[in-house]
Parts: sequence; structure tokens; C-alpha cells
Amino acid sequence: MRIALLGGTGDIGQALALRWARDTDHEILVGSRDPEKAREKADEYETELDSVGVERDVKGFANEMAADRADVVVLAVPAFHVRDLVAAVADRVADADVLVTPAVGMDRDEEGFHYKPPKVGSVTQLVADAAPDGVAVVGAFHNLSADRLANLDVELDLDTLLVGDDEDAVETVRMLADQIEGLRPLKAGGLANAAEVESLTPLLINLAMENEGMHDVGVEFK
Amino acid sequence: MRIALLGGTGDIGQALALRWARDTDHEILVGSRDPEKAREKADEYETELDSVGVERDVKGFANEMAADRADVVVLAVPAFHVRDLVAAVADRVADADVLVTPAVGMDRDEEGFHYKPPKVGSVTQLVADAAPDGVAVVGAFHNLSADRLANLDVELDLDTLLVGDDEDAVETVRMLADQIEGLRPLKAGGLANAAEVESLTPLLINLAMENEGMHDVGVEFK
Repeated sequence: MRIALLGGTGDIGQALALRWARDTDHEILVGSRDPEKAREKADEYETELDSVGVERDVKGFANEMAADRADVVVLAVPAFHVRDLVAAVADRVADADVLVTPAVGMDRDEEGFHYKPPKVGSVTQLVADAAPDGVAVVGAFHNLSADRLANLDVELDLDTLLVGDDEDAVETVRMLADQIEGLRPLKAGGLANAAEVESLTPLLINLAMENEGMHDVGVEFK
Repeated sequence: MRIALLGGTGDIGQALALRWARDTDHEILVGSRDPEKAREKADEYETELDSVGVERDVKGFANEMAADRADVVVLAVPAFHVRDLVAAVADRVADADVLVTPAVGMDRDEEGFHYKPPKVGSVTQLVADAAPDGVAVVGAFHNLSADRLANLDVELDLDTLLVGDDEDAVETVRMLADQIEGLRPLKAGGLANAAEVESLTPLLINLAMENEGMHDVGVEFK
């Protein structure tokens, strides 16, 4: 399978690229608005993988090109960029594609982080509304610390949550998440249930701020 | 310390009463609108505790009486009753008291459960607004399955989250939570951070519905 990480030069994009490249045989395409930056980062990821004994080819492209070539497209950009990104790649994602959105809308004030969804109720729903007809949207990977995920020395032993209305698409992303070592995907319902999943992210950041030794904290449901 | 569980004949009240009675020496007062029902349930809890080899005196009272006598008052009622309950006991809770609120506002539809906070942003904030001046409010115990907590054969090995603006009150509740075997309290910020804590409850119910073997699921942050 070909996985494109749009905004794949950023924290969560890098983290998912490294994990999938190490733990699977899927082809990894790093996308960026700037194709030169995408190629540079892809080279960096190859070097990083090589340093843990994994010889892998990671390619960089402009976001549109990466989306065009991929079976699964991860929108690894901040919430306030995601709608523009979907618009930019809309004519490049075929019917068979799955769009995966890990973004969360948050505010920060002196009290900590607060969940701040868009008016449609969640970023996942925003992406679903912006996606071309026939392109399935799955929310996933919201509640993972990018730093922890990007550090290949760390065993994850964590859960990640999936939301989506298209069962086949959810199953595809469930399989891809499950292939990352130490990550357990759990279904959290349809798009209508995305807000409760996304709001876990500011909670995790608040826990990291309020409790010693919880930097990069994740979650296990048990 | 004296702990009153108002609405202590219900699921979460029973669960906390049994755990604190078994694991601590704190005096446990079961409150109900109907004092006779409170006394009956208190007797039931004593019998249940006796069956696991714990000889304990658990007393039942009308909610107002229980609140009057307690150092810590847990409002173990559904979200839509909590404001009336606070009003009913307002003149019985002295300045030294801590009000603890585990309630969460939720809607259910064919898609699952959805977080539905009151207009002030969270049930915890609603209680804080309704509480008499000088009475501290702490949100806690939202994300625990009452059935799992009430089953004394089950080892918990779970986290619970605390929110509150009064540090002494949060510390009191942190200590009380920590005294329940297998329960780890974590601070999740001030009252302004309560929504992210409360919204974990519908998420847990959705996970229980969507995944096999996750009935009564709880959470560990790690």
C-alpha cells in the first residue's frame, strides 16, 4: 500500500513516516507544500531509519503529487490548515483513497489547553465535509505524542482511537495502525463521535503539564 | 475523615462507598432523598463488606443530614439533578467542606454517546457556580465504571482525573482517591479544564460499545 503523509515534514508526519517505514513494507511518500523540503526530510528519515538498521526508500513530493500517488492520505497538518489542504488535493484523491485526519482544534490560555472544535463539531467532520464525494474520511492518531512516536527507541504500548462512517476505510486504517509495533487501534464510533476522541488531546497535554514524569503521555484503555 | 455520598444509593455512590469502606478508615455516610432507603442501602453495603471479611459500620441519612455531618461531600447523582442537590444541601455544608462532583452531561442517539455540557462549560463548573461561597469544588471519579468499582473482587489498576481551583481541596480528594486500592489520581488542571475530563466518559462508553471485551473499560495514562 502507498501512504502519503501530507505535511509530512512536521512532527506527527515525521513520526508516522518513521514508524510505518520501520514496521511495514508500505511505500511512504512525504508531502509538503515545498517539494524540495519534502525531499530533504525524506532523506533525513532514510538516514534516521538507516541508523536503526532499516534500509528504506522514502520519497518526497509536493502535497498534490504525493496525494495523487497514494492509497491512503494522512492530513498531518495543524487544524487551521486542514481545510485548505483538502481543497488543494481534492482533485488528486481518487474514489479509492482514504483521508486520515489526526488534527485537533485547541486553544491555550493561562489555565492550560482547551478543546475548541470547529462549528461543525469536530475537525474530523470538517474534513469529511470538505472531502470530495466518495472519498472516505477516518479520524485517527490524535492522541499520540509526536515526539514519543518519532523516537524509534521507545516502545509505545499505547492505544489510538478511530472514528469514521465508512467501515472499509476504518478497517484499512485499523490495519495500518495495528501494524505499528506497540500501537493498538480501537474503534470509537462514527464521525459523530469524533469530538470526544479529539478532546482527549488537550486533556493529555494538561496531564503532561500538571503531573511529573508525564511528558509525552499517551493512553491505554483497559 | 467523614465522607458523605449524596445519592449514595445509586451506582457510583455505592461503588465509592464500598471501596472507601473497605480500603480506608474514613466514616462513610450514605445519603438519599429518602432516609429510609439510605438506611436500607447502608445495611446492604455492610452485608456486602462483611462477605469480603470487612466489618464496617455504614450509616444512612437524608442527604441534608449526611452533608451536615461530613467533611467531604460527594454529589453522586446524575448531571440533571446536581444543581437541585447542591441547592438542597447549601446551608448544611460548612466552609471546611469539599464538594466532589463525578457527574457528566451526556446525550445518547443512534450513533452512541455524546458529551453535552451545561452552558457554563462543564458540570463541575455548574456545581462550582451553585456552591455556597467558600465551599471548594473538585471534579473527580468521572471516568470509572460504577459496576467495576462496585465489584470488590476486581483489581482496578486505573487512573482517575481531578480538576479544581482550590489546591487544598484537590489535595484532599487526591489523597482520598489514592487510598482506594489500585486507583491512581492525576491532576488535570483547574475548573476551566473540566470539560476535557468529563468528555472522557461518553468516549469510554462508546469504546465499550464498539470493541469486544471492553465492557466497563477504564483508562490508564502512561
